[in-house]
Amino acid sequence: MSGLTRDEVAARDADDPLAPFRDRFLLPDGLIYLDGNSLGPVPKATVAAVARTVEVEWGRDLIAAWNKHGWIDLQLRVGEAIGRLIGAQPGEVVVADSTSVNLFKLLAAALRLRPGRRAVVSERGNFPTDLYIVQGLGGLLGGRLELRLVEADGIEAALDGGVAALMLTHVDYRTGRVHDMARLTEAAHAAGALALWDLAHSAGALPLDLAGCGADLAVGCGYKYLNGGPGAPAFLYVAERLQGEARQPLAGWFGHARPFAFDPEYRPAAGITRFQCGTPPVLSLRALEAGVGLAAEADLRLVRAKSVALTDLFIRLVERECGGHGFALASPREGAVRGSQVSLRHPEGYPIVQALIRRGVVGDFRSPDILRFGFAPLYVRYGDVWDAVATLREVMETRAWDRPEFKVWAAVT
Amino acid sequence: MSGLTRDEVAARDADDPLAPFRDRFLLPDGLIYLDGNSLGPVPKATVAAVARTVEVEWGRDLIAAWNKHGWIDLQLRVGEAIGRLIGAQPGEVVVADSTSVNLFKLLAAALRLRPGRRAVVSERGNFPTDLYIVQGLGGLLGGRLELRLVEADGIEAALDGGVAALMLTHVDYRTGRVHDMARLTEAAHAAGALALWDLAHSAGALPLDLAGCGADLAVGCGYKYLNGGPGAPAFLYVAERLQGEARQPLAGWFGHARPFAFDPEYRPAAGITRFQCGTPPVLSLRALEAGVGLAAEADLRLVRAKSVALTDLFIRLVERECGGHGFALASPREGAVRGSQVSLRHPEGYPIVQALIRRGVVGDFRSPDILRFGFAPLYVRYGDVWDAVATLREVMETRAWDRPEFKVWAAVT
Repeated sequence: MSGLTRDEVAARDADDPLAPFRDRFLLPDGLIYLDGNSLGPVPKATVAAVARTVEVEWGRDLIAAWNKHGWIDLQLRVGEAIGRLIGAQPGEVVVADSTSVNLFKLLAAALRLRPGRRAVVSERGNFPTDLYIVQGLGGLLGGRLELRLVEADGIEAALDGGVAALMLTHVDYRTGRVHDMARLTEAAHAAGALALWDLAHSAGALPLDLAGCGADLAVGCGYKYLNGGPGAPAFLYVAERLQGEARQPLAGWFGHARPFAFDPEYRPAAGITRFQCGTPPVLSLRALEAGVGLAAEADLRLVRAKSVALTDLFIRLVERECGGHGFALASPREGAVRGSQVSLRHPEGYPIVQALIRRGVVGDFRSPDILRFGFAPLYVRYGDVWDAVATLREVMETRAWDRPEFKVWAAVT
Repeated sequence: MSGLTRDEVAARDADDPLAPFRDRFLLPDGLIYLDGNSLGPVPKATVAAVARTVEVEWGRDLIAAWNKHGWIDLQLRVGEAIGRLIGAQPGEVVVADSTSVNLFKLLAAALRLRPGRRAVVSERGNFPTDLYIVQGLGGLLGGRLELRLVEADGIEAALDGGVAALMLTHVDYRTGRVHDMARLTEAAHAAGALALWDLAHSAGALPLDLAGCGADLAVGCGYKYLNGGPGAPAFLYVAERLQGEARQPLAGWFGHARPFAFDPEYRPAAGITRFQCGTPPVLSLRALEAGVGLAAEADLRLVRAKSVALTDLFIRLVERECGGHGFALASPREGAVRGSQVSLRHPEGYPIVQALIRRGVVGDFRSPDILRFGFAPLYVRYGDVWDAVATLREVMETRAWDRPEFKVWAAVT
């Protein structure tokens, strides 16, 4: 490692079995895109799929397209495809709404599946919208819900007979730390609680085995490693064994047993269909379908192996090249418990990220001091890792970050 | 009328100030599309807007597009544009989620704004998903919500001191009957209740004056007369005077006062922003924006006048041409209380609609016996009305509907 050169790194790209995937994306020339954990790039197939949906399906077939082009069960079909990426059984995943809305459905379902229990355990550092949704549901239920926030090492101790659900994000959005899904699911079950997983930073990035882990409920996002487009519809998973009893309160017509019978009484559809709500946004769904289709072509074990290799390389090069510049590693050093990102801490994190972006190396910043770099193995190259670190070194050595315009906060997602 | 000819009808198209709008849509040659009340056609501008969003905004700018291309507040901007079409004040409308999800938010908000009241009054014949959502919320609240269903003539009698909200669809989806928004809103207020309007079949079809009527809350749909695309994101309206106190339970990060501060505590944003929830589906939103932009170019008074003229003409021609075939008018005869559709009843309604569709006249069927024809004035011509009725007459005289393949039910929306 100590003598590693750019050529040696580039040689790994020549040997990379995933290398051909890069050409399946639209990627601007010269850009090193390390923010696919926030918004994945455009699969080339998406351009054609969306255009066809607008011009041919909607344009020529109009209302008939709901049946003729299968829009009516598109959420179920894309859900099935996602299910295969996350180790679900057939019929356990559906695409619908946003991650936040789906969490609301599943939290409400969990409370009904565990009557008498009123606590939800989660991490204090969980992605905020997950916590907000619990708070919103709690406000509606008027004190019949307690959000119990703990640190990662206090999760198991917080699980007692009052807990309806353990709600965790599998890969931490700031640090990239991976939870042990099997162990924590088992801990939840031992306390009689359900395990609800947020897979936002997991789906498409690492092999998952929801069914094998006994996971009860899960949600996830379509616009990160699934490359489904900005604000792509989200997905949810409900273990088959729970579907018969599970009820969710967003009882829209797409979750009805017979939506086109126009029955005034709600009767939930069988199976996962009952977790749909309103009429789905078909254009965004078609983009998600194309992204998921591309992800499904890759062997997730190869994706994971390359992800660990890319992130290992980044950590080691940062330590070698940028050693004196005050960075601290915020991600786990051990690849096995690190997602497909590396996060660094630095007090000047925000302007450093802006200076990198100006130089065509796109990562992002998370408050208060986290520089976050995502390494999506379908399009990030080993050579990109080298070049990103070289750019980071240049930014630090020249203090290129120390400019007023890099310190003006702008919203980023 | 009795001697009206095809040429006389076509002459009205030559004089129609809205006639140039038809060329702004992709419409298949030879098709008479009378189902824009279910799914509007593609505005030509939408094709370019969506392609640009995918290839340029998302494709080239990736994560930076959230700021650079204004995705971050797109729901607010499109909401403002819709607000101008429905007589809202600035800052009273936002696009978000689906109509069903938005109804859930507003019903929950209404219950909190009217503590101690637990009833929602609605019509037995309201669009089912509206009723389902009340039922879903009621199930979650465990009996703390009563759905009181009445016929249209019993609405005012049902309003008493226990009613939190009167929830009505302004234009009935089956018959096209228009409710008197001002009078019923006043009746709700007289009983201390809030008035919540579903504008699915109203927005873009007729002038509305939500602010002038004192309406409290409203939802509506983007894919009918706003031509926003299949499953387009929906909108919601909250009168400014209620926004400070109003809370909704789908407390996602896009409704937070500072979503990118990643604060673990939910604090609702000021104003209408707090009614957003998760990350919005940008591709579908851009299509909606294009549709709304086109609708905004038309004078809604002209739209309404042509709508009444088209539907009047259709009724009179059906009565003249198809008099002996067993049709009954299900829509109001008086134009002032009829939306932009005409519904007919016929015991063989389903196969008749299928036979019409086979001949390029697209209406739809609503259980149990309703043939529904929508007349969207931006692209339906007077001559189309003539031709549609001539086709209906031919279908009835030749019994073209009486074929087994027209009697196989397929889901339609």
